[in-house]
Amino acid sequence: MPQASKVIEKGPLASTDAKWIKLSKITYTDPLGVQRTWETAERTTRPKNSLIDGVGIVAILNKRHGPEILLQKQYRPPIDKVAIEVPAGLIDEGETPEQCAVRELKEETGYVGVAEQTSTVMYNDPGFCNTNLNMVHVRVDMSLPENQSPKPELEDNEFIECFTVPLSGLFAELKKLESQGYAIDARVGTLAEGIELASTLKLQA
Amino acid sequence: MPQASKVIEKGPLASTDAKWIKLSKITYTDPLGVQRTWETAERTTRPKNSLIDGVGIVAILNKRHGPEILLQKQYRPPIDKVAIEVPAGLIDEGETPEQCAVRELKEETGYVGVAEQTSTVMYNDPGFCNTNLNMVHVRVDMSLPENQSPKPELEDNEFIECFTVPLSGLFAELKKLESQGYAIDARVGTLAEGIELASTLKLQA
Repeated sequence: MPQASKVIEKGPLASTDAKWIKLSKITYTDPLGVQRTWETAERTTRPKNSLIDGVGIVAILNKRHGPEILLQKQYRPPIDKVAIEVPAGLIDEGETPEQCAVRELKEETGYVGVAEQTSTVMYNDPGFCNTNLNMVHVRVDMSLPENQSPKPELEDNEFIECFTVPLSGLFAELKKLESQGYAIDARVGTLAEGIELASTLKLQA
Repeated sequence: MPQASKVIEKGPLASTDAKWIKLSKITYTDPLGVQRTWETAERTTRPKNSLIDGVGIVAILNKRHGPEILLQKQYRPPIDKVAIEVPAGLIDEGETPEQCAVRELKEETGYVGVAEQTSTVMYNDPGFCNTNLNMVHVRVDMSLPENQSPKPELEDNEFIECFTVPLSGLFAELKKLESQGYAIDARVGTLAEGIELASTLKLQA
């Protein structure tokens, strides 16, 4: 019987006890040559030869009434809320961002797609941590038999619900989802802001 | 004489020695009622009564050839690169997101503006940390005398260079900046992707 996830306890974690993340102290020189220090947080999971931690996936599904973006609802312990995110995942050793995106899309949503475009590397919060990702745009051919009733292949500890939102109404829908208690991931939120800006300012390519 | 900032040394930081950030261990229940643990990173600077760490500022300047977004170049020790970001800052005790945005815009860029719209709270990397912000859209009246040659009021340890990019060319410009060695902040990057998507798909409000 599914129930709402929730934090039961939260306490300090010694760096030496942490497995997935760590703190580091940086000494650097500023533009005047003055030595300064900075504290930073990192994932310990980035493969040695990789420049990124993972990927986010932009999958636009062509639905009857127009293009819709594929999103997910997933409980995130760090914020004790269900977050609205694009499909995403950490990169495996030796994998390209595009391979990772196609694999994660299949695992998390069941959709089979083809990587079409890869963004710049994006840094999630560069004053605080070094975590980053590529956004990969994956084309999903909705006419393929395997995309008719996609079946996610989730692990035992993954609880992800997929849904789609019309792109042109994304900004308003996120406001509504927030009012219902969901947390909006920065990637989804600023993507919606970009669409809204383009529309408000009537930008042309 | 300005010179390139760079990391000189980086090493482990014990949680007990960290001042600005910390690690926490969370125990939570999953949707099946199973107890699990999660490791998370946090800022220690969020004011007690605040739901957010800070704000990002969307300031669109009406230039002769069309709307341009106000951006910044700032060296970020966690990634040892100069990041391309929107103006941003941490919230002070008792401040609203809108007050913070107007204050930070003035301090970091010199522009005087009026907060017009506030986004949902956006979570920077909710599988890893709890850091978040509101994006605040600030209107900058370019006809005001104080906005003719804006003077930033930077602190001694702040080195920020402001510049503007035409909104319709933002996506391409970010690719170019990345090829020159700059790091693209996720907010700027996905804002550009949203504009590009709206244009490619010819979305209408």
